[in-house]
Amino acid sequence: MLGIDSKAVALATASAALSFVLCKRHFERLADAERRRRYEDRKSFKSKSDAAAKERGLPSGTKLDDVTTGGVYLWDVERLGRYEHECILANIRRHPGRAEATRAYLRAGPRQKLHFNPVDVNAAIVTCGGLCPGLNNVIREVTRSLYHLYGIKGKVYGIVGGYKGFYDPNTPPINLSVDSVENIHHEGGTILGSSRGGFELDKICEFIKSKKISQLYVIGGDGTHRGAFSIHEECMERGLHVAVAGIPKTIDNDVDYIDRSFGFISSVEAAQSAIRAAKVEASCNLPNGVGIVKLMGRSSGFIAAHATLGSGDVDLCLVPEVPIVLEGSTGCLPHLWRRVKKNGYAVVVVAEGAGEEILGESSETDASGNKKLPQIGEFMKKAINEYFHKQGEEATVKYIDPSYMIRSVPANATDTLYCMQLAQNAVHGTMAGFTGFSVGLCNNKTCLLPIPEMVLTSPRQMNPQGR
Amino acid sequence: MLGIDSKAVALATASAALSFVLCKRHFERLADAERRRRYEDRKSFKSKSDAAAKERGLPSGTKLDDVTTGGVYLWDVERLGRYEHECILANIRRHPGRAEATRAYLRAGPRQKLHFNPVDVNAAIVTCGGLCPGLNNVIREVTRSLYHLYGIKGKVYGIVGGYKGFYDPNTPPINLSVDSVENIHHEGGTILGSSRGGFELDKICEFIKSKKISQLYVIGGDGTHRGAFSIHEECMERGLHVAVAGIPKTIDNDVDYIDRSFGFISSVEAAQSAIRAAKVEASCNLPNGVGIVKLMGRSSGFIAAHATLGSGDVDLCLVPEVPIVLEGSTGCLPHLWRRVKKNGYAVVVVAEGAGEEILGESSETDASGNKKLPQIGEFMKKAINEYFHKQGEEATVKYIDPSYMIRSVPANATDTLYCMQLAQNAVHGTMAGFTGFSVGLCNNKTCLLPIPEMVLTSPRQMNPQGR
Amino acid sequence: MLGIDSKAVALATASAALSFVLCKRHFERLADAERRRRYEDRKSFKSKSDAAAKERGLPSGTKLDDVTTGGVYLWDVERLGRYEHECILANIRRHPGRAEATRAYLRAGPRQKLHFNPVDVNAAIVTCGGLCPGLNNVIREVTRSLYHLYGIKGKVYGIVGGYKGFYDPNTPPINLSVDSVENIHHEGGTILGSSRGGFELDKICEFIKSKKISQLYVIGGDGTHRGAFSIHEECMERGLHVAVAGIPKTIDNDVDYIDRSFGFISSVEAAQSAIRAAKVEASCNLPNGVGIVKLMGRSSGFIAAHATLGSGDVDLCLVPEVPIVLEGSTGCLPHLWRRVKKNGYAVVVVAEGAGEEILGESSETDASGNKKLPQIGEFMKKAINEYFHKQGEEATVKYIDPSYMIRSVPANATDTLYCMQLAQNAVHGTMAGFTGFSVGLCNNKTCLLPIPEMVLTSPRQMNPQGR
Amino acid sequence: MLGIDSKAVALATASAALSFVLCKRHFERLADAERRRRYEDRKSFKSKSDAAAKERGLPSGTKLDDVTTGGVYLWDVERLGRYEHECILANIRRHPGRAEATRAYLRAGPRQKLHFNPVDVNAAIVTCGGLCPGLNNVIREVTRSLYHLYGIKGKVYGIVGGYKGFYDPNTPPINLSVDSVENIHHEGGTILGSSRGGFELDKICEFIKSKKISQLYVIGGDGTHRGAFSIHEECMERGLHVAVAGIPKTIDNDVDYIDRSFGFISSVEAAQSAIRAAKVEASCNLPNGVGIVKLMGRSSGFIAAHATLGSGDVDLCLVPEVPIVLEGSTGCLPHLWRRVKKNGYAVVVVAEGAGEEILGESSETDASGNKKLPQIGEFMKKAINEYFHKQGEEATVKYIDPSYMIRSVPANATDTLYCMQLAQNAVHGTMAGFTGFSVGLCNNKTCLLPIPEMVLTSPRQMNPQGR
Repeated sequence: MLGIDSKAVALATASAALSFVLCKRHFERLADAERRRRYEDRKSFKSKSDAAAKERGLPSGTKLDDVTTGGVYLWDVERLGRYEHECILANIRRHPGRAEATRAYLRAGPRQKLHFNPVDVNAAIVTCGGLCPGLNNVIREVTRSLYHLYGIKGKVYGIVGGYKGFYDPNTPPINLSVDSVENIHHEGGTILGSSRGGFELDKICEFIKSKKISQLYVIGGDGTHRGAFSIHEECMERGLHVAVAGIPKTIDNDVDYIDRSFGFISSVEAAQSAIRAAKVEASCNLPNGVGIVKLMGRSSGFIAAHATLGSGDVDLCLVPEVPIVLEGSTGCLPHLWRRVKKNGYAVVVVAEGAGEEILGESSETDASGNKKLPQIGEFMKKAINEYFHKQGEEATVKYIDPSYMIRSVPANATDTLYCMQLAQNAVHGTMAGFTGFSVGLCNNKTCLLPIPEMVLTSPRQMNPQGR
Repeated sequence: MLGIDSKAVALATASAALSFVLCKRHFERLADAERRRRYEDRKSFKSKSDAAAKERGLPSGTKLDDVTTGGVYLWDVERLGRYEHECILANIRRHPGRAEATRAYLRAGPRQKLHFNPVDVNAAIVTCGGLCPGLNNVIREVTRSLYHLYGIKGKVYGIVGGYKGFYDPNTPPINLSVDSVENIHHEGGTILGSSRGGFELDKICEFIKSKKISQLYVIGGDGTHRGAFSIHEECMERGLHVAVAGIPKTIDNDVDYIDRSFGFISSVEAAQSAIRAAKVEASCNLPNGVGIVKLMGRSSGFIAAHATLGSGDVDLCLVPEVPIVLEGSTGCLPHLWRRVKKNGYAVVVVAEGAGEEILGESSETDASGNKKLPQIGEFMKKAINEYFHKQGEEATVKYIDPSYMIRSVPANATDTLYCMQLAQNAVHGTMAGFTGFSVGLCNNKTCLLPIPEMVLTSPRQMNPQGR
Repeated sequence: MLGIDSKAVALATASAALSFVLCKRHFERLADAERRRRYEDRKSFKSKSDAAAKERGLPSGTKLDDVTTGGVYLWDVERLGRYEHECILANIRRHPGRAEATRAYLRAGPRQKLHFNPVDVNAAIVTCGGLCPGLNNVIREVTRSLYHLYGIKGKVYGIVGGYKGFYDPNTPPINLSVDSVENIHHEGGTILGSSRGGFELDKICEFIKSKKISQLYVIGGDGTHRGAFSIHEECMERGLHVAVAGIPKTIDNDVDYIDRSFGFISSVEAAQSAIRAAKVEASCNLPNGVGIVKLMGRSSGFIAAHATLGSGDVDLCLVPEVPIVLEGSTGCLPHLWRRVKKNGYAVVVVAEGAGEEILGESSETDASGNKKLPQIGEFMKKAINEYFHKQGEEATVKYIDPSYMIRSVPANATDTLYCMQLAQNAVHGTMAGFTGFSVGLCNNKTCLLPIPEMVLTSPRQMNPQGR
Repeated sequence: MLGIDSKAVALATASAALSFVLCKRHFERLADAERRRRYEDRKSFKSKSDAAAKERGLPSGTKLDDVTTGGVYLWDVERLGRYEHECILANIRRHPGRAEATRAYLRAGPRQKLHFNPVDVNAAIVTCGGLCPGLNNVIREVTRSLYHLYGIKGKVYGIVGGYKGFYDPNTPPINLSVDSVENIHHEGGTILGSSRGGFELDKICEFIKSKKISQLYVIGGDGTHRGAFSIHEECMERGLHVAVAGIPKTIDNDVDYIDRSFGFISSVEAAQSAIRAAKVEASCNLPNGVGIVKLMGRSSGFIAAHATLGSGDVDLCLVPEVPIVLEGSTGCLPHLWRRVKKNGYAVVVVAEGAGEEILGESSETDASGNKKLPQIGEFMKKAINEYFHKQGEEATVKYIDPSYMIRSVPANATDTLYCMQLAQNAVHGTMAGFTGFSVGLCNNKTCLLPIPEMVLTSPRQMNPQGR
């Protein structure tokens, strides 16, 4: 709950606009045990990979720099000496007089030595899961970087309709060329199509083998990345010489470690028109106008919170990270009442995943006996109406659900540039021989991140104490 | 149903895109008997008005031109000689060799002689009903025209929150000045606020009398206009010297006689982003993507049809004027199936009032035993899913409801200009002494229309045979 | 000059915002002699055409309705009986008691009888002159109407780069199909490319003959239309069986008879961001901020005037139709001074063709001795600076020239619908056998207009007395 | 020069899109000698400040934390222990095995102890120099933070029209309240107005003293910040108890140390419509269309480069950081020729300050004998025309100068959020007693920066080697 009421804001909560009650659930998922287990796993990938590399020999025609395999992408500062790659410090907050061990990420960018001979490179690109602004930008820039920057002579396959497209005969892959991707970045969605699920490891590896794919670019969320890493492992196991790069795609901005995911700010911009509509409806419909906007965000409230702060017009923001308090002195409803009494109206933004703790209680069953969760937006509409009624007045509540309208827009200029950075650096990484990695902006620098580390703590949630 | 399938379109239905089956209900409302009764009524207003005018004397200081009362606004061509005002022909289609009686509307515009002395004029403006782009433009231009063009010395009251604002002590009127309205036209909604209902004739006339209002500007739909005309009649009856002008406001474009209502095309533009989103979602989500957009339009499909044709991307448009046929060779569902099989996806636009004849059958009752109408959008989503399932495939249906987002935008430039024309001519009309009239664009010319005539046939519906 | 100053506006100029001094030049071009001569010309085309039709026989397979040639599109009311086509009255203003001869236009729309057998139809589309929003829409809808509505079996040639593309070997025609035009309407400009000039009648007719073109669609301004009519005449002369349709394209809205040209209102919308920028710069830069925006309009000020009234933020609008008065009580500069002193700033819109009478006097010669006309925007900037300086203050003048930015935007929804209407009706017209005609919206109804009549009075200018 | 030609791009220049030849001029300004001198200066400010603090005593009512003065904001890592404030590492790139001294910035945010008693606080806000998106956002959030977050009881003065507004009787300060700033963030520009120059230290300090201002917020570029720091020094000298905070404003993004300046990305977004127009004009006008867009950027090319990469449609980008090579194998003109021959057209973006080295040579003198520099945009237009002419063809060059249109837009959502962060943290900083500082995002964290350090290396230029 993100309520701004001049009366209620004490100095102790001075940064209330960005402060949220700490949510414990998030950190329980990060249990040390799990973390340790994955580290061990990564070590074994490393040795598998080393063995595989030895067996298959090295491609001729280019000098190689074999730093490609698991476990190398994330260092403790003291281990930096072992590698020659520049890196970026991860934790950059310091308390004076306090020594602190620091992790770091591999700095992205072109390398002087190539692992793959451009003549031999065939690549595949696949987009999975829900849509997100910038998918076409990434597809375009990966294709352009391969052909323009590295002059590859092979094919770039566009896998159609997500993982399923590796093997579904109804949706055969398409060939991507510099010409065919020329103008796609001005369109929302993905020219490749997308879908959920359909991950069949064996069939995917069959495709990779039969088409002699040496580079695979996987654009998707944490689930998709887990799949990508499995492909990487399986290819290692089978002795297939394939670099697998992920580009994290999540409209909810809930992939950990990175400053923000591509398309996120385009969506936040797109959400503004819904908030503007809610403000107009709330302020112009008497009596006691309240506008409610529901925005995407199942387990985290990044879009809701950023759209709220990016509009400057919102009186209450409900996110999954913070349990909803309806009544009482710090409750949502009295807060809204006060806002309406002061300004004549109020605007509310809710993340679709907010309020699970409350909605669970009021659950009903539908015709088939399945538990039917009431929706947070409609719940709040009803709650506000009832609260005002109890105070002896009527509220005029207008509910707006822009749904897919905020994610199907084209990438704006900022995301276009960001997608270009991500895609180019994914290509730089694979050409240099890295695999099982993902790319992202960390502390405003583009970095390569090991997939296991990244998915370990995703989906992340907002830090309600952050600023 | 507005389906475009190259196979299914015979030449006989060449203009299918704009052709709809004729709807009888519309014309039943126009029964001659009613029409005749209202004409008689108007005549009696005329004599009341003449009598009232005589009693109260004429204001001094300006020359007068008393052509203000009922019955004068709509002529047969042969009766034109009786009046000195220029007029605009109403029906301008002709069949060769066929003589035709023609009605005409009074041409709007400034008159050389004023009925009111600007020194004495106090005016009131009220906005009623749902929001619509351009409300603030009309408020602004009425205010500016009164002060700038005519130099009135009195007050312009902004009535707050619809008709109720004439008497509700919680929402007292505000004073409108040229300065206070300077920048309001860039905002959606209405600075006066709006609400439904609250029409209390007696209290309204009390306000008019106590504040010495001589001009009342009522911005609203057909219901609001009926109220405005009652005020006009009651003021006549009481001998109050008040000119009442309506400016027709309907997001649905369902006021008859006029080319279009203000704000309509701004809404149609605003609806495009929802259709674009539906197209992206439909075309990028596999398998068999279908995007559904629900747009406003309870009893008419103007927004849905214009947004459809204004996008060029829609495969099926459902409007209230045309009964929905789901199955069979001309049915919606097989049409969509064919479109999806040909293009990979399809986009559907539904007006919220479409399909009443179908939805009535599948009605359920809610907890309180009230009949709960299923929504057309959700109904179609379910029907499409089921139809594809029956064909042995799955559809991916994405449903988008932009709701208030299309009506709360500011007026675009075209509507800004139109609102200016309407507001200036409403002021020209009242200053010249007309009353009980409304303003609108007829055959691309600004005209004055008698309210009784206009509301008689509103809400109108689209002519499915039109082109 | 379009100045709005509350003090200066007398009631006699009540509609000042749209009122301009009558410009004589316009009507001098319409001399009766010329008009009569052209009518005679058209008659001879008619007989040529009749003869040609007889010679070549009629195509089999469809019934024909030979009403194709010149002189039939514009009737006096009394002559309506001679033809069976529905028509639309042209002049619809009436003064009471005054009988008036009325002209009319042929109502556009599909005809029951086709002149061409769809099986035989090959068509060509060409876009000429400067860009305009909606060109791609027209190309798309002509192509779709031919294939979808009429099911033609031949080819639709897209002529590349204007008239030159009929014969320039560097820019061969492209084939247009329903698939290839599917998404072009969301892009500005024209997929065919455009250029000025290049009209070579003989080569064009050669192309028409060699490709067996039976329908030619020419999208361009009045010059282009004159060319189109020459093609029509020449084809008649040569006995080529070709219907030539024009779709009037002019960013300046200066084609006569029609309510507005396609793309015009998209441009007026696009101009708003320049005016908004000028307002912000003027109001925020001290001291005495003045923002100047130059908009397209060589010989007419439609864009400037509509953009001015569509913004509601402009203090002075200069158009070619009205001579500029700089000094004196009704002068621009004192008007701006008063506005700045009252509001703190002022916004000026100038049409690029405004002020020729003033700028001519201050002309200089450039290096080559050619007369170099000072630009109106820069001239006004200098004049304002000097005027303020003479009053003992400094002005901060910001000059903005959006130039091509207002004409290269895609058509908005309103123009998309309008372009569809124009293109469909151009196809309806040619399929029914009309030729030498153009399509346009007249009194809010789509009509067919004879090209000679239309170009006779184009480029038109605004009627400064209009409302 | 930023040219992308698949043929010409060797792997050695793989990151060509962001790579520019290193410009020496930049680093010559950063000479060590100067740096050392300034450090010494700062030390003396520190002691002055300490002395001043002692003399004036501490305000009662709140606990204090006097860490306010110069020299404390930027540490070497080893000195962190001396202060209790959290900080953010500045240089976060590391080479493995290499130890590195690290500077750090003070982390922004609310402090537990306040230096000022909110009851006593009067504040002033001033905006100086050219407009920039987000100015109103900063004004709004400073005002809201003071009243809402800290509950100050004094006045917030809005200084009108830049530094001059501190003393110019024609533009007296206005009172800013939470209500008066409520909706200003949706407008471009600054409600306070702005101007260049007018800095008179003595008069400004007089105002500060007479109005008992204890906090001054200065929004402006590096020149303005130098002024702000002078005010800080002078107030120290005079024993005035005033905290001075700067918020760096530069449309050109040329303030050093910070990730980006507020409003920058809104401008980059706004520039897209000009580039889109250039692309449409270039691709649709035959023969050999070339579109040129001139964007702001006198001494740095940030806007030009980001707008270029944010559009994905530009073939050549000229910035001040890289000398222009016109002819030869790596020259602009042959590059454009190749692009036009391959794609049919080309798009060029030029920063207004690019090409000084070339333009200097072709200078002429105007009537008064003053050196008249040809403009880069017009120069390139002429050069391209001539080059194509020399090759025996004609180019169609369209030149677009959006000028102020890219800086007068409102802040988009991303900048709105950023401005909120900057303004809130400026207030947090002053309330905690910091002075002579500026706020900015460094490595994606909000920090406090010492003004002397920041202006020392501003205006910065792009690092052509950066990625």
